[in-house]
Amino acid sequence: MTTNQLIEQIQKKQSFLCIGLDVDLNKIPKHLLKEDDPIFAFNKAIIDATHHLCVAYKPNTAFYEAYGIKGWKALEKTINYLNKNHPEIFTIADAKRGDIGNTSTMYAKAFFEDLSFDSVTVAPYMGKDSVEPFLAFKNKHTILLALTSNAGAFDFQTKMVNDMEVYKQVLETSKTWQNSENLMYVVGATKAEYLADIRKIVPDSFLLVPGVGAQGGNLQDVCKYGMNDSVGLLINSSRGIIYASNDQDFAEAAAKKAEDLQLQMKQIIS
Amino acid sequence: MTTNQLIEQIQKKQSFLCIGLDVDLNKIPKHLLKEDDPIFAFNKAIIDATHHLCVAYKPNTAFYEAYGIKGWKALEKTINYLNKNHPEIFTIADAKRGDIGNTSTMYAKAFFEDLSFDSVTVAPYMGKDSVEPFLAFKNKHTILLALTSNAGAFDFQTKMVNDMEVYKQVLETSKTWQNSENLMYVVGATKAEYLADIRKIVPDSFLLVPGVGAQGGNLQDVCKYGMNDSVGLLINSSRGIIYASNDQDFAEAAAKKAEDLQLQMKQIIS
Repeated sequence: MTTNQLIEQIQKKQSFLCIGLDVDLNKIPKHLLKEDDPIFAFNKAIIDATHHLCVAYKPNTAFYEAYGIKGWKALEKTINYLNKNHPEIFTIADAKRGDIGNTSTMYAKAFFEDLSFDSVTVAPYMGKDSVEPFLAFKNKHTILLALTSNAGAFDFQTKMVNDMEVYKQVLETSKTWQNSENLMYVVGATKAEYLADIRKIVPDSFLLVPGVGAQGGNLQDVCKYGMNDSVGLLINSSRGIIYASNDQDFAEAAAKKAEDLQLQMKQIIS
Repeated sequence: MTTNQLIEQIQKKQSFLCIGLDVDLNKIPKHLLKEDDPIFAFNKAIIDATHHLCVAYKPNTAFYEAYGIKGWKALEKTINYLNKNHPEIFTIADAKRGDIGNTSTMYAKAFFEDLSFDSVTVAPYMGKDSVEPFLAFKNKHTILLALTSNAGAFDFQTKMVNDMEVYKQVLETSKTWQNSENLMYVVGATKAEYLADIRKIVPDSFLLVPGVGAQGGNLQDVCKYGMNDSVGLLINSSRGIIYASNDQDFAEAAAKKAEDLQLQMKQIIS
């Protein structure tokens, strides 16, 4: 998918909501555990109920890997279901990968070719030659961790290097990499005021913003500091939407939570 | 596996060799492609030919994920084969994972419980609460990226923060984390002289050292600067061993290359 197609979707749906599909078998409604593939059954119901309210879905690969081959199959079925029924929706493999050059190419093939995701999240620690193999894929997007939403973000990301925090070094340096136009960035919502500085470095890039809701981030603040002319934001909510109810009505309850956010977004865009 | 069991193996085999199982279907002998599971067939032959010469095997997960469910099955068969036939060998899932707390727990379950690896490599960018979930597993080991062997290591890892490089900050900070005795570190062999400084910070920890051979690192230099009283090193070689030949004799050729390294190690230890 091209960035312009994503922007068109945002305008059409008046939404920049991304729904995180972090499926934990201990948290989904009990009645689904009788299904052949409870993880996919849960995802399908959530997708069917929310696809008109969001522009992106983001399965976090950890939740699938934890169930081994069964989990990997559920991930494959989920992305295939999305690509077949909702090809206009932007898909994010939240995998936080990164390795030396030839190995990163294998990861890129796993997510861009084997699973046909539109994008993948990547960790920056190993630098340029660990990220450029992902950037080489046309119309695929690499979402680089810059400033994450967890407490540990302050361990290294915010440390000062030559009067500039490490996460800003990551932003600045990444702009010099080949095919850097295929970059987006992860920026946690729990530090909304940091977004003003971030926008000075990457004014045009899309930012994937986790941490609204369960982790305490505020939608209005994120938009105030982080929005650009094309919106330029994907606001992720996972637990706050998909676990709104763990009863028979879980999909409708998720849709209600998603709609609450979409209506706020509509008001902000217009 | 406990650290003492690993040290005993090193003494017994007079080896601190780790063999990287980075299986690329374009590089393995053509005759194996006729097998039901060429990846596992290749790994099994390499393991059968080399298990007496090494103390660890390290499949890099990228090479398995690139083949989707087939690849994940081959990874599962490989670790099961190792745990059943060679339980004394230390196993490393080279996965370079890392995510916020509850999600890192899912990754830890994937590699420590579902796949029963002894250890997993983890990226430090997201800090304490992204690593501690791995450290909570008893007799399992978390191998934290400190200084990697690729060119991109100089993009962020060697940048100075308060008179100390980022990778040294990672080492120092990680020592304060809960269950830090379960930490080991990745330190690239291409920067052997850095090991002297690293040993000042983590004198007793095991270091997993990639980059000997194909990437230009020198075994003697690594041992000179990095060895401690318990050896404290796992020297990894992947391509240099497993692709020594791509003909019918590939397993014997791999064993020959592994033996060359093991004999050098024996001489260094004694």
